[in-house]
Amino acid sequence: MSLFTAGILIIGDEILSGRTQDTNANFIANNLTSSGIKLEEIRVIQDEKKIIIDSVKYFSKKYNYVFTTGGIGPTHDDITSESIAEAFNKKYETNSEAFNILEKYYPKGDFNISRQRMAKMPSDVDLIYNPMTAAPGFKINNVFVLPGVPKIMEQMFKNILANLDKGKPKKVTTINTDLYESKIAPTLSNIQNQFVECSIGSYPYFNFISKQGGVNIVISSWEMDSLEQVEKEIIEMIKFNGGNYSIV
Amino acid sequence: MSLFTAGILIIGDEILSGRTQDTNANFIANNLTSSGIKLEEIRVIQDEKKIIIDSVKYFSKKYNYVFTTGGIGPTHDDITSESIAEAFNKKYETNSEAFNILEKYYPKGDFNISRQRMAKMPSDVDLIYNPMTAAPGFKINNVFVLPGVPKIMEQMFKNILANLDKGKPKKVTTINTDLYESKIAPTLSNIQNQFVECSIGSYPYFNFISKQGGVNIVISSWEMDSLEQVEKEIIEMIKFNGGNYSIV
Repeated sequence: MSLFTAGILIIGDEILSGRTQDTNANFIANNLTSSGIKLEEIRVIQDEKKIIIDSVKYFSKKYNYVFTTGGIGPTHDDITSESIAEAFNKKYETNSEAFNILEKYYPKGDFNISRQRMAKMPSDVDLIYNPMTAAPGFKINNVFVLPGVPKIMEQMFKNILANLDKGKPKKVTTINTDLYESKIAPTLSNIQNQFVECSIGSYPYFNFISKQGGVNIVISSWEMDSLEQVEKEIIEMIKFNGGNYSIV
Repeated sequence: MSLFTAGILIIGDEILSGRTQDTNANFIANNLTSSGIKLEEIRVIQDEKKIIIDSVKYFSKKYNYVFTTGGIGPTHDDITSESIAEAFNKKYETNSEAFNILEKYYPKGDFNISRQRMAKMPSDVDLIYNPMTAAPGFKINNVFVLPGVPKIMEQMFKNILANLDKGKPKKVTTINTDLYESKIAPTLSNIQNQFVECSIGSYPYFNFISKQGGVNIVISSWEMDSLEQVEKEIIEMIKFNGGNYSIV
C-alpha cells in the first residue's frame, strides 16, 4: 500500500513568543489523517530566511507533501515567498495572474506597492486561490504555501485537499475506560504485540475537580481492514479488570 | 548580553494525528519569553525511538535549554525515557528516589509493575518533582523531560523555571490600529530599518461577521532598554495615515 506522508512548517515568531496559540497545525493534521495522509512532523520556526530555506528543502525531500503557513502578507516581516524562491533556485518575481486577481479585488487606487508585494512569488508556481481575501498562496514542487490567518488558511487548504492524491483514510477507534493507565498497561502491551499492524495509544486524563480519571485507548491503523478484533480484546481486558468502557 | 535560547520537543502521535490540540508549547513559550529565554524552535515528533534520539541530541547541542513533553507514562507507547537514555549513552534503570516517591504515593499493593516503569530513567538524572500525581520527570544535561498532561506539566514547568538561569525579559509592546496592513507596510518597513535592535511584527486580523479588520503591530526586543521611541514613530505613522490606535 502506498502511504502518503506530510510535514507542516509553521513560520512565525508570534507562535514562538507565545503571543499566538497556533491552531493551523491541528486543523491540517485532522484533515490529513482523515484523508489517508500521514502527518509525520510539525516544526514551528522563526521568521529567518536561512531557517526557512533549510527547513523547506529538508521537508520537501523527506515528505510527499509540505504545508507552510504564515509570512506571505504585505509587510517587511513576510519573507516566506522570497525564502522559498531561494530554496528552489527560482526567481522571486511578480506573478501576473496573482497581480491581476489582486488588482481586480481592490478599489481603484488602493492596490498600492505593499499589496503588490503579495503578487511576488517564485517563478513557475501554481496559484492556490483565496476565496475570502483574494491574495493567493502557491504550490511549488510538493510545497503548498498558505497564509497564517486561520479562517483564510482553512478555506484554501480545503480546496487543495480536494485535489491531492490521497491514501486510504486511517482507521481509528477510541475506547474510553475509567480504569487507571497502570492497571491496563501490561495487557495493553500484550495486545499491541499481537497486532503489530496497528498502533495502540493510551491517553490518560484526570479531572482535578471531580478527582476522577481514566484513559482513552486509541487504536489506529493505516493498514488493517478492520480494527474489530483489537477492539474486542481491549474491551474484554477492561471487563476482566472490573472497569467500565465506552466507544468514543 | 548573554541570551538564553530554548527548543521544545512535543513527543506524541496524538498531536500529529490531530486528535489532540497541543497547548503545552504555547504555555512554555509564554513563560520563557517573559523570563528572558528565547524560544527558537518547536518540533512535534512521532513516538519513534530513533526520531526521539536524533531530535534530542540535535536540540541539546543547539539550544541552552530543551523541554520535552509526553511519553513518560506507564504504557508500552511511553518510550521517551529510554530513548533519552540512549541519546546520552546512559543506562536506562530504576531511579531509587523516584521508586520511593511512587511507592509511598500508591496504596499498598497498587504499585504494580507498570507503575514501577515510571521510575525507570537514564542513570544520573536530577528529578523534577510532580506535586500533583507523584510520578517525577527528570533533567539530564540541559534537557528537561516532562509529562504530556497539561495541568501536571504546567506545575512541574513552573518549578523548573524558578531555578533556571534567565536573561532579561523580552520587552514587548503591542499597538493596535484599524488601518489595513498594506496601508502601513511601507512606513513600518522604514521604521524597522531605523531600529534594527528590535523586531516589528505585523499581525493582521479580519472579523468576517463585522467585516472589520485591523493590525496588531508587535514591537519586541531582547536588547533595547526602552521601546518608547519606536512606539512613538509608529503611533505618528498611524495618525498620519488617518487611523486610530490603542496600546494593547
